Amino acid sequence: VRPNITYIIPVTTSEGARGPAMLRQRCEALAAWAGERAGINVVGLEQGPLTIESFADEALAAAPSLARVREASQNGADAIIMGCYGDTVLEAARELSPIPVVGPGQASLHYAALLGERFSILTVVESVVPMLRRMVRLYGLEPRLASILPVGVAVAELASARDETVRRLFRQGRRAIRRHGADTLVVGCMSLAFEPRLTEFLQSELDVPVLNPARIALDVAISLCNQNLSHSRRPRRPGFAGA
Amino acid sequence: VRPNITYIIPVTTSEGARGPAMLRQRCEALAAWAGERAGINVVGLEQGPLTIESFADEALAAAPSLARVREASQNGADAIIMGCYGDTVLEAARELSPIPVVGPGQASLHYAALLGERFSILTVVESVVPMLRRMVRLYGLEPRLASILPVGVAVAELASARDETVRRLFRQGRRAIRRHGADTLVVGCMSLAFEPRLTEFLQSELDVPVLNPARIALDVAISLCNQNLSHSRRPRRPGFAGA
Amino acid sequence: VRPNITYIIPVTTSEGARGPAMLRQRCEALAAWAGERAGINVVGLEQGPLTIESFADEALAAAPSLARVREASQNGADAIIMGCYGDTVLEAARELSPIPVVGPGQASLHYAALLGERFSILTVVESVVPMLRRMVRLYGLEPRLASILPVGVAVAELASARDETVRRLFRQGRRAIRRHGADTLVVGCMSLAFEPRLTEFLQSELDVPVLNPARIALDVAISLCNQNLSHSRRPRRPGFAGA
Amino acid sequence: VRPNITYIIPVTTSEGARGPAMLRQRCEALAAWAGERAGINVVGLEQGPLTIESFADEALAAAPSLARVREASQNGADAIIMGCYGDTVLEAARELSPIPVVGPGQASLHYAALLGERFSILTVVESVVPMLRRMVRLYGLEPRLASILPVGVAVAELASARDETVRRLFRQGRRAIRRHGADTLVVGCMSLAFEPRLTEFLQSELDVPVLNPARIALDVAISLCNQNLSHSRRPRRPGFAGA
Amino acid sequence: VRPNITYIIPVTTSEGARGPAMLRQRCEALAAWAGERAGINVVGLEQGPLTIESFADEALAAAPSLARVREASQNGADAIIMGCYGDTVLEAARELSPIPVVGPGQASLHYAALLGERFSILTVVESVVPMLRRMVRLYGLEPRLASILPVGVAVAELASARDETVRRLFRQGRRAIRRHGADTLVVGCMSLAFEPRLTEFLQSELDVPVLNPARIALDVAISLCNQNLSHSRRPRRPGFAGA
Amino acid sequence: VRPNITYIIPVTTSEGARGPAMLRQRCEALAAWAGERAGINVVGLEQGPLTIESFADEALAAAPSLARVREASQNGADAIIMGCYGDTVLEAARELSPIPVVGPGQASLHYAALLGERFSILTVVESVVPMLRRMVRLYGLEPRLASILPVGVAVAELASARDETVRRLFRQGRRAIRRHGADTLVVGCMSLAFEPRLTEFLQSELDVPVLNPARIALDVAISLCNQNLSHSRRPRRPGFAGA
Repeated sequence: VRPNITYIIPVTTSEGARGPAMLRQRCEALAAWAGERAGINVVGLEQGPLTIESFADEALAAAPSLARVREASQNGADAIIMGCYGDTVLEAARELSPIPVVGPGQASLHYAALLGERFSILTVVESVVPMLRRMVRLYGLEPRLASILPVGVAVAELASARDETVRRLFRQGRRAIRRHGADTLVVGCMSLAFEPRLTEFLQSELDVPVLNPARIALDVAISLCNQNLSHSRRPRRPGFAGA
Repeated sequence: VRPNITYIIPVTTSEGARGPAMLRQRCEALAAWAGERAGINVVGLEQGPLTIESFADEALAAAPSLARVREASQNGADAIIMGCYGDTVLEAARELSPIPVVGPGQASLHYAALLGERFSILTVVESVVPMLRRMVRLYGLEPRLASILPVGVAVAELASARDETVRRLFRQGRRAIRRHGADTLVVGCMSLAFEPRLTEFLQSELDVPVLNPARIALDVAISLCNQNLSHSRRPRRPGFAGA
Repeated sequence: VRPNITYIIPVTTSEGARGPAMLRQRCEALAAWAGERAGINVVGLEQGPLTIESFADEALAAAPSLARVREASQNGADAIIMGCYGDTVLEAARELSPIPVVGPGQASLHYAALLGERFSILTVVESVVPMLRRMVRLYGLEPRLASILPVGVAVAELASARDETVRRLFRQGRRAIRRHGADTLVVGCMSLAFEPRLTEFLQSELDVPVLNPARIALDVAISLCNQNLSHSRRPRRPGFAGA
Repeated sequence: VRPNITYIIPVTTSEGARGPAMLRQRCEALAAWAGERAGINVVGLEQGPLTIESFADEALAAAPSLARVREASQNGADAIIMGCYGDTVLEAARELSPIPVVGPGQASLHYAALLGERFSILTVVESVVPMLRRMVRLYGLEPRLASILPVGVAVAELASARDETVRRLFRQGRRAIRRHGADTLVVGCMSLAFEPRLTEFLQSELDVPVLNPARIALDVAISLCNQNLSHSRRPRRPGFAGA
Repeated sequence: VRPNITYIIPVTTSEGARGPAMLRQRCEALAAWAGERAGINVVGLEQGPLTIESFADEALAAAPSLARVREASQNGADAIIMGCYGDTVLEAARELSPIPVVGPGQASLHYAALLGERFSILTVVESVVPMLRRMVRLYGLEPRLASILPVGVAVAELASARDETVRRLFRQGRRAIRRHGADTLVVGCMSLAFEPRLTEFLQSELDVPVLNPARIALDVAISLCNQNLSHSRRPRRPGFAGA
Repeated sequence: VRPNITYIIPVTTSEGARGPAMLRQRCEALAAWAGERAGINVVGLEQGPLTIESFADEALAAAPSLARVREASQNGADAIIMGCYGDTVLEAARELSPIPVVGPGQASLHYAALLGERFSILTVVESVVPMLRRMVRLYGLEPRLASILPVGVAVAELASARDETVRRLFRQGRRAIRRHGADTLVVGCMSLAFEPRLTEFLQSELDVPVLNPARIALDVAISLCNQNLSHSRRPRRPGFAGA
């Protein structure tokens, strides 16, 4: 009874060089992490934002992402991962879907709360900071937040600026620990989470737990399937009444 | 220097009987309340949900509502009101727009905090309760919330069930006061807010302040324009990177 | 149906040069801001403190201010503004008065919460900081407070030290933004609020919203009158039992 | 080195039957409780409210109470107790006075937090509930508050309605325990606190700690004197600038 | 690289009928849940309390449990589960142990926060309620707690009163949902967690997620091992200085 | 009716030079502070940790400390002081004991809250910081905590490094005031609390209240005895079920 996990990337994957490669890379990484424990399916949007780096990007991604949730839910998936650190449309997805929908932001922040007293989130650009701050507040974890630190590299530039990005993540992680009192770090961007050996490197250099939201979301999704658990559906919420 | 206020209804207004009538009615009501103080423009969506009664509806409304924000911002509006009590895409709208964007939910809850110690929100159906609860938490006003009470009448049925709706609003308001300790009530649905003399009736019957989010959003929008105030744009957020 | 607003200055206005000039200046400024929207009346105390810069000053102002509230309430005012940023005797005034009583501190802090995530208050001397901190806590807005920064100029010296005061307000505002993470500023003293073009200057230099509590209190007072709203009177509180 | 404690009753004690008797009774009770540990002085107001049962009463009491604080501070007192459960002008008194000023409300609520998880306050009339709620919030103890329950007997009627008052205190105390989850009770009115054997009776009947704010304030005042402790005077606050 | 998990039962397992059977039953259950994913070892105390149903029991269990932690840590375990819902000596264990130490209370409460808005804990006797309430507060999850409901059956009586216990758990779960607004339930006792098909039965009857802390602790322990994660050791804490 | 107070030192006092001297010194100091007000008895552990500087030390101390509580409770003590700043086994002791059990940490933190707005705790080594932080959170006083600052001197070295310890306490106290905004300081270690004239010196040098937890615990214990008060025993908790 190996569960099937559908990982939804809420950005356009149909166009240009980045999309198909991203689908392939994330599927391989998730499958390698899952091993025998789960089957993996990765899907993206035909039309949507190129990346999610603002509330406005999130708004553009909302409707097409939700359509993917509905498809996955109908096509035999056992759990869904919303593949954006900001947990795009997580609540709407849970309204529509009886199967568990896991948000990497939510899952990783609760893991952080299991492992330390105060966490910092390392992320890409400054424009996502308000989105992540709002998310932390919604989950009731603000008292545990030390800081949210961007490295000033846009998602689209990560591939070409990998070394500089890693250096800055290290520096911001060190600053979070020394200046903001963090004892645990979370990588707050799925593109960073799929960067090979990135969290491992940061953890060995910084000597605190460094959490990878992709791996955590995967483990939580499998765990929920195995235990026959899903999000609470009380009060029952109707489907949407869209045109 | 009379400001121009654009009120965006984030649901389909192009189809069926409800849309055009809703545009006309809300424009007349807002214009009457504004008097000489402001010019009013009301716009809706060509494609979108029929009503907003779930997170999924909100997701469907997000992208087209944001397009309306951009248009209003470019077409000479001085302020925008997001015409849904759940403050649909408020944060995304503020990223895109230098002019003030007022959320009736946010504005009315802060007015409630000015007038009493504990407020309850009276709304339509149970499925919006989680949306409103999330909103109250985001605004940091959870400690002031007594309860959120639905009357169990869907937005689409309000017109044909007006009397029953009013009766239930009265009963839920009384319950909020007696059982949940509310000393102030807010009408938590824009369709209710535009129902003629509804809040006045409830206030006179229940003997506590009953707030109309449409009127409050209008007054706040005009006040911000007159004082040359808008939402903070620090840290500056980029526009969206959508396809 | 233009409402009459009474603005009570809770300090001695009967003696020396400052009193009568202050009454005149504030009346002119409020009338100019109100335009056709409201009639303005400004009153002060015969006996009371010269300024309110400590809890002890507040204690001296309490009884005579309350007498002014009672008079205004009986003499046909439609709303009252307690003209001190610390909202002197606001709660007592609301016990005695069925008409709305607006506190500039309370009104401006809720406006700040509408416009940004974290606000700082710029004020006169260090001795008012504990009063303002207490007020922010009472209103439940402590989680939104970045800092309260005094400029070290006493109210009585503002007139003769205007340029230095403005320079220090600018420097403290910049510090609030850079060091304390404020994205919105509030001018926390009514004497500063009536200083011509002060908030406008700070807003244009600092590039964040800078709120004027006098203008906000006025707009809120007018808005409440127009909507027939007042503070909640549940539970009903008796008048005072004074000798 | 027996400390001298001045207990200030912030109501009129110069007129009618109640004043002088109250001064005498409270002095005897405090002296009996203090024994060899302290000398006791009790003073009241010449002009002020008859009782403190509203914010408006508090406003009337503020200035004359503060004058008593200043006198006590200058006349060799080692500590002051503000003899009203609402801790009237406590903060202003601490500005003016280098010697410790103890508020029975504050001291008893912190004792309650030492002895239980959740406390309820039993008090006289409904009009003081908002004052006490504000006080609990100011002291940061709201998370520990179960309820504030009035018995509906005004201070002026306590003497003639003693039996009925005791019965109602018992019933409200039982309700606080059973319905609101209180495990500790505080008597929230100084006139009740000086009622002979009242708290002892309630404690023996209700089987939870029942705190007497007069005795606690006295013990805390003596303890602070013996340990050479007083309230923090950082940041230093100036005296008042009154006429 | 299958991790070895040591599950420590912090009560006496050496004496009487209950101990050895408990070791065997828990080992079989954990091994069945783990399948190929992990090796399981279950150990108990030679001397300690018979059950943990009070703070005093916890105190008795502290030192011998910690000795077991040290042994496991030295004997090649890859992770430790503290097998008591109250997370006995969790913090001390983490000081001594570089390998992850999982508390079933902590892990299950964070899972509950992933699946719903408000959870209730169903437990055995009233005397553990203060322990669980303290634990919830320590983990910062009090705002999510709906209630903690005991069934009034002591751990030692569970075996002989299974049917009655199940009935009461069902009734208390229903009460938590209807009266306290819980949308998620957690079984708050390890003896209940190992009762075959108990959580499954409650979940199917009550139609909300019902969490089994034993299974969740196991999944979290395996997940942490697979991701090479452990609790933060900043600031580094020394070992104990015991005789 | 002079109450008998038993002060329990939860570390080994039977061995080496430090134990007996410590018993004698603390008994003399407490007796001197108590004067005629109370009789003093000081007891330690036969077997236990040498000092309490970690959660692990606390675990070792738990069971034997609790045995001392039981003895004191049975041998005619009127109140117990748990003589460790971390309030070791305070909750378990209160389960077992009908007489008041005072924790110096809890008592001193509530005194600090009476005297200032924000306190810092000065303590010995970094490893106790997480214990004290947990304690502050449990007592609900985190919003009042400015910082916890260790001086980096272990308890066992205090005697030989007194001068250096005092210098560092002064420097950390100054830092707490200037950098962390503390207006009140608490000495967070009982060995420091019994160092002659230490808190007096720090208070006179730093010009803020500096609280001695030993003296405060003593005064609170005597006060509770005199007022016939003890901790709430609702809900009644059973004794322990240990072997």
